[in-house]
Amino acid sequence: MKCSLGIDYGTNSVRALVVRCDNGEELGSFVAGYPSGKDGVLIDPKDHHLARQHPPDYLVGLELCVKGALAAAAKKNKAFTPATIIGLGVDTTGSSPIPVDSANRALASLPKWKKNPAAQCWLWRDHTSWQEAARITELAAKHRPEYIAKCGNTYSSEWFWSKIWHCLKTAPDVFQAAYSWVEMCDWIPSVLCGIEDPKQIKRGICAAGHKALYCDEWGGLPDKKFLSLLSPKLAELRDRLYDKAHDANTAAGTLSSTWGKKLGLPAGIPVAIGEMDVHYGAIGSGVREGTLVKVIGTSTCDCAVVPATKKVKDIPGICGIVKGAILPGFYGVEAGQSAVGDIFKWWIESVCEGDAALYASLAKEAAKLQPGGSGLLALDWNNGNRTVLVDPMLSGLLLGTTLHTTKAEIYRALIEATAFGARAIIERIEEYGVPVKRIVCAGGIAEKNPLLMQIYADVTGRTMLVAGSSQACALGAAVSAAVLAGVFKDFPAAQKAMTSLKDIEYKPRAAARKTYNRLYALYKTLHDAFGGVNRQADLSGVMKELLTIKSHSQK
Amino acid sequence: MKCSLGIDYGTNSVRALVVRCDNGEELGSFVAGYPSGKDGVLIDPKDHHLARQHPPDYLVGLELCVKGALAAAAKKNKAFTPATIIGLGVDTTGSSPIPVDSANRALASLPKWKKNPAAQCWLWRDHTSWQEAARITELAAKHRPEYIAKCGNTYSSEWFWSKIWHCLKTAPDVFQAAYSWVEMCDWIPSVLCGIEDPKQIKRGICAAGHKALYCDEWGGLPDKKFLSLLSPKLAELRDRLYDKAHDANTAAGTLSSTWGKKLGLPAGIPVAIGEMDVHYGAIGSGVREGTLVKVIGTSTCDCAVVPATKKVKDIPGICGIVKGAILPGFYGVEAGQSAVGDIFKWWIESVCEGDAALYASLAKEAAKLQPGGSGLLALDWNNGNRTVLVDPMLSGLLLGTTLHTTKAEIYRALIEATAFGARAIIERIEEYGVPVKRIVCAGGIAEKNPLLMQIYADVTGRTMLVAGSSQACALGAAVSAAVLAGVFKDFPAAQKAMTSLKDIEYKPRAAARKTYNRLYALYKTLHDAFGGVNRQADLSGVMKELLTIKSHSQK
Repeated sequence: MKCSLGIDYGTNSVRALVVRCDNGEELGSFVAGYPSGKDGVLIDPKDHHLARQHPPDYLVGLELCVKGALAAAAKKNKAFTPATIIGLGVDTTGSSPIPVDSANRALASLPKWKKNPAAQCWLWRDHTSWQEAARITELAAKHRPEYIAKCGNTYSSEWFWSKIWHCLKTAPDVFQAAYSWVEMCDWIPSVLCGIEDPKQIKRGICAAGHKALYCDEWGGLPDKKFLSLLSPKLAELRDRLYDKAHDANTAAGTLSSTWGKKLGLPAGIPVAIGEMDVHYGAIGSGVREGTLVKVIGTSTCDCAVVPATKKVKDIPGICGIVKGAILPGFYGVEAGQSAVGDIFKWWIESVCEGDAALYASLAKEAAKLQPGGSGLLALDWNNGNRTVLVDPMLSGLLLGTTLHTTKAEIYRALIEATAFGARAIIERIEEYGVPVKRIVCAGGIAEKNPLLMQIYADVTGRTMLVAGSSQACALGAAVSAAVLAGVFKDFPAAQKAMTSLKDIEYKPRAAARKTYNRLYALYKTLHDAFGGVNRQADLSGVMKELLTIKSHSQK
Repeated sequence: MKCSLGIDYGTNSVRALVVRCDNGEELGSFVAGYPSGKDGVLIDPKDHHLARQHPPDYLVGLELCVKGALAAAAKKNKAFTPATIIGLGVDTTGSSPIPVDSANRALASLPKWKKNPAAQCWLWRDHTSWQEAARITELAAKHRPEYIAKCGNTYSSEWFWSKIWHCLKTAPDVFQAAYSWVEMCDWIPSVLCGIEDPKQIKRGICAAGHKALYCDEWGGLPDKKFLSLLSPKLAELRDRLYDKAHDANTAAGTLSSTWGKKLGLPAGIPVAIGEMDVHYGAIGSGVREGTLVKVIGTSTCDCAVVPATKKVKDIPGICGIVKGAILPGFYGVEAGQSAVGDIFKWWIESVCEGDAALYASLAKEAAKLQPGGSGLLALDWNNGNRTVLVDPMLSGLLLGTTLHTTKAEIYRALIEATAFGARAIIERIEEYGVPVKRIVCAGGIAEKNPLLMQIYADVTGRTMLVAGSSQACALGAAVSAAVLAGVFKDFPAAQKAMTSLKDIEYKPRAAARKTYNRLYALYKTLHDAFGGVNRQADLSGVMKELLTIKSHSQK
């Protein structure tokens, strides 16, 4: 028996998963939280843009979850021992850069910087650098349009350079103390491999791609002349970063004996290159040409692949088209919605102060409602819009409330808003020649929220499939490790053996589809008006059309 | 000692008030609910436009509240006896027309019609006839523009003809059975005076005015030719309505011996002409030239008066400019917001499922927030927009939500939305030459919600005064009765003796005013875009401007 280990760092916890290579059976998994902050995230009540994490938490969680998963696997299958693990892979959130010293230690692990917010990991959903992002977009549009053509012509505040520049501006002492900056998905493998020089870290193309503006075509990272336009100090930093990023055909290294001992794993096994969670999630969900994988969780990430032999157009508003970012030999196309589960959590837990029972009762009530029956329409922008507007400075909107609007109606409207956002993404990538013939959804929401899945099918007019594994990201990381360890000849072969689909399919219903087409037209009207696409918007009919749809739906 | 009795029919209950004529001292009052429906209102969960009341409930409530008030007065002042009551006045909601038979009995009091929704009183806030209202507006614009010039060029679904026409269309049996239709404010006095022929009822100019399109200039009610354009049956109905409507210098009649006995009052005392609640509320709050009275409750009504000797322009979007509608000898100018307290009630009681404790805690939290500090902006249209858009087919909007938005922030945004709506009304009437030099607020919210009052002062830039009586509407009805009974030579003399102001004043604060000016500009942008005033709206900056204001407010 050969097994592979996948480690998946989510926003609120880290999970380890032991998988059999021959049939994908999941022998054991374990989840560990992060000790610091609120649900593992350091926040600032005065600035909702701020979201950081304490890097030492990652190592605490790592030990706990790996040991837990190994113990669970041993319990499930007597033949399992840690010696059967042939390799391990890591995925994390991103772009989540971490400032490190010249020994590859996270600054926040040093007493001096421990509590400094700027010395922590800058979590993907940190939007404090929105001004820097806008300026990078401006400068690139003027001087290096090719840099941002591959990320929807807009550089994001969620990404590498915005965050580091913001640190330089607002916490120059931290910037000065940082020898280098490492994406979380590169840093964890580098720690596991015992790499003590940031220049020696094998960086993944996945995070480097559009997020750090890396591309082989222009010689790697942005050139120093361009970076000097931001700040000469960023140009200097370039020398302490990296020249070459790698796809998943390259290993991050091999497991160090120190970490082998800590985790109870064989030292020397290969550690796969780090990728971002959804990229490995796409692999774990069976991504291939023509398949769109949607990982639906706190936010949603959409991934598709196009053979590197084909020409891929730049797609406006699509945040990443990067060769090798997901599967070696393919362009990875990445899009996403900045908040999905987070919006429901906000509504149900924060505003309505509810618990699991309220989730259940609202789901039940909302399921009884007809499409259009509430007269409500929402925009899913509570955390900005990642695709297709690429604008974190947008916010949520709820329209059509009366004196009778219920919290269940609002819950359903919020689900529908995320479905409309999902449809906008599908339409955009198809418009630019990336076919979507099959949609596979993964993530907790895909499994646990049949109402949402049916609404997504009705709104998009597509059948929604569900990934077989509940831990698609960790599974994808394990698949990558299995390929790297030579168990399979390539990724498709490994995916065939190790990944699957659940039995359930959500199919679009014709009547609902018809109503949602009308609502989607209104959503697009609001989307374009508030998103700045249409600056001469006629909104005079929106509320009336909603009432008309409502009155029809009740007949 | 001479006393006067005011009876105030609100949306959810009826109140009687005994007042001393010499000094306005309130000797006793009593409130009675209506037995039927939800909080006294018959509703239809399938049609949020429907709101009816069961007229026999009014008479049940009448006995209870009058007897209660007399008992309270006797307890408070030993010199008081019912014999000291020199007259009584009635105010009610409106336009709330009631179908009656030829003996002036409400149809709903007859077994056959008791449960028929169309045979009930069509409460002011019933909007089922929005299509009829739109058609009346269209027909009047084409054939009788003068009819609607005095009500903002838009006829409302809240008014007399829309409702009766809707009854004719949707419940022709009820229309056929109704000999006549009587406004609630005319019907209650007619019952008290024992009038058994609808043609003999003294109708008040207040309700007849713009609501029934009555004007002496064009010979009373709309001519039969115009009504025939709606339906020949409405033209026929005109003969069974009335030719002349009266201001408060005319009595509705004298108290019948039957009702004198029932209520324990001297038969034969004068009964003042019925007016709508806010009109008598304006009198009870000391309305005079240059004063705007805001009665802030479930909805808000604004009243001002202009001497009949002056020329008053027609004001677009202002729902009523009627000579004698409030004070004899003055034009009454009436405007309003379809929902104010109702919006807070919806949010706190219905969505948040809170009680009085939640009102208190949200008020406390909301008071700590800075203007603009939440980044939220709302439209106060959960029940449509009465002034200045005169459009019931509008709905509520909340914009600027993030993943951190709290229910207290939303509560404050809803208060602010109503304040912006209030400012739009003030600006509109001043623009057309009705000066607002002094604002007096009355109603439960004016007394109990200091946060709202301060926000209104900050948003409008005006000092908010508070009427001395907590029962301004009932007090105004009592003032009218006292003038009619000859205790005072005219209304100003009676108001001087019987009305007052509370000690508290809410003054605008410069810093808050500045921020609210920026927010109001955004409110107007949304208002005009969704209200159809601007059909080429640029909304691309709205969310960003809100975030800018938010970031400034937190510094």
